[in-house]
Amino acid sequence: MTFKKIVMLGFSDALLDSEHWQRLDSLGNNIVKLGKDSQNIVEELRGADCLLSNIFAVPITREFIDAAPNLRYIGVYSTAYGKAEPEYAKTKNIPICNIPGFSTEAVAEFAIGAILEYIRDLERSKQLAREGDFSEVPKFPIYEIMRKNFGVIGLGRIGYRIAELALAFGANVYYWSRNRKPEAEQKGIKYKDIDRLLAESDFLSINLPWNKDTNLFMNEVKIRKIKPGAIFVNLSPNELIDFSALESRLAKNDMVYIADHTDEMLPDLIKTLSNYKNCVLYPPLAFATKEARLNKQETFISNIESFLRDVPTNVVN
Amino acid sequence: MTFKKIVMLGFSDALLDSEHWQRLDSLGNNIVKLGKDSQNIVEELRGADCLLSNIFAVPITREFIDAAPNLRYIGVYSTAYGKAEPEYAKTKNIPICNIPGFSTEAVAEFAIGAILEYIRDLERSKQLAREGDFSEVPKFPIYEIMRKNFGVIGLGRIGYRIAELALAFGANVYYWSRNRKPEAEQKGIKYKDIDRLLAESDFLSINLPWNKDTNLFMNEVKIRKIKPGAIFVNLSPNELIDFSALESRLAKNDMVYIADHTDEMLPDLIKTLSNYKNCVLYPPLAFATKEARLNKQETFISNIESFLRDVPTNVVN
Repeated sequence: MTFKKIVMLGFSDALLDSEHWQRLDSLGNNIVKLGKDSQNIVEELRGADCLLSNIFAVPITREFIDAAPNLRYIGVYSTAYGKAEPEYAKTKNIPICNIPGFSTEAVAEFAIGAILEYIRDLERSKQLAREGDFSEVPKFPIYEIMRKNFGVIGLGRIGYRIAELALAFGANVYYWSRNRKPEAEQKGIKYKDIDRLLAESDFLSINLPWNKDTNLFMNEVKIRKIKPGAIFVNLSPNELIDFSALESRLAKNDMVYIADHTDEMLPDLIKTLSNYKNCVLYPPLAFATKEARLNKQETFISNIESFLRDVPTNVVN
Repeated sequence: MTFKKIVMLGFSDALLDSEHWQRLDSLGNNIVKLGKDSQNIVEELRGADCLLSNIFAVPITREFIDAAPNLRYIGVYSTAYGKAEPEYAKTKNIPICNIPGFSTEAVAEFAIGAILEYIRDLERSKQLAREGDFSEVPKFPIYEIMRKNFGVIGLGRIGYRIAELALAFGANVYYWSRNRKPEAEQKGIKYKDIDRLLAESDFLSINLPWNKDTNLFMNEVKIRKIKPGAIFVNLSPNELIDFSALESRLAKNDMVYIADHTDEMLPDLIKTLSNYKNCVLYPPLAFATKEARLNKQETFISNIESFLRDVPTNVVN
């Protein structure tokens, strides 16, 4: 079985290795690649039975879904699928398949790395060493993860893995999640309600998917509750954050914000946030290891193959 | 009991907090602080019964020991004591007390942090994000610790803690040490002979003290054996390394050297090594967390107090 027409939105050639492009080629009689500025997306979708989207580059709209009456499959090139209208697609019986967990380890390692980078002041340290300047060294206010309170908001795959690593570093690890997680609690990851978690954690990592329940999860009230001096790490979607409330808090210089989804920020927001020394921005690299890239492509293609064999995998809606 | 005369070499005021200076004040009738350029060290030592040295600033020589016929105690402000003539002091029945383990966690966290900083290219990433430039992001050759071979040379306190953290990151962890460590092996830290460890590890951390047996431990033969592409982390003394052999290897650009004892390098060596992108130099910060600073001062002073109460602690010779 193959698809008659696959429409791909927002895929640059570099997104898949040649091996995976070849596998994809054999799954559709006709494959059309379009970018976010393409004028003919709706038109091309008319005959499509498969829609694949890199939803951060080109979100899937209801209009797109409506434009494709024969659509049988939507594949998103991400774990997130909030930008693919999952509920609307469900009303039309179109499964959306995502790529869960491909970057669990990549993101968890990044979270710890970015925290250590900050608390050990590695960027400035490297610069000083190159200059052979050791005068400031005794004054470096660097500290350890061990014995600090480490709070994880959202204990899915990534949150759980970050919590496990924090435990290994000897932190006191707490979590808040919509549902209690007995397995995690047995490992020593203790539950706190969200208000206490925010108020008592020295390190906070938010690891929630973006959906209507989590939109602006970190609203003004919650942002104000973050413990003075805490480091807040957001490797999840920007939509979880009320940035104007965050900015007010950053201006007080009593917390640190570390995030990596800057490519989805407007240039003005990047500029504003970059003015704060207590705001550390990264490109979207947390999930982007070599290993994660391979996991991701493998699952993306095998989801399509599985659907065509009538054993769909990773259906989210 | 107190000492009649304490001579302190290489202690800046900032090294101890005021609380610890006060405790020290009550332990000697006369306390003389001298720096490495002081002309009167030998003279001042004549009446000293206690010699305290920050040996990285002012090493203790045989001449110093000979100059103080009444010397009863040597305290080094470090874990390392190779620069305090431990064997010579022993022939004169002078105990040397050091400060073991104060920085175990600090150094272990730094080792992991510096590795993550490198394999995730954090310094460059931060710069690109500030500039809002995401064009290079897909090409970043970043990767994970998980499932790589992680080799630890020397399984003392620090080496063991680094090995534990590497295990938590899902690495395959191996060690070489003069003596087998059954407890570590039960935890999954496997033994390899040094040649295989060098040849097969993707990450290597050397955690040996400096002494006559370990001087230039990483000689030309061993440096040549390091696996192509490996990251070699040295947060131990520079004296373990044959730098001319290291430079030849760095020039081939097929390994990475990360180290933090740059303050003890000659400016020319810093300059030479800084030319290699595959050499990452830090100031001496691995051990220098707030927590380690406090641990260190506490043990340094309590060693002296314990000696004066005839229950000496942390005698190394």
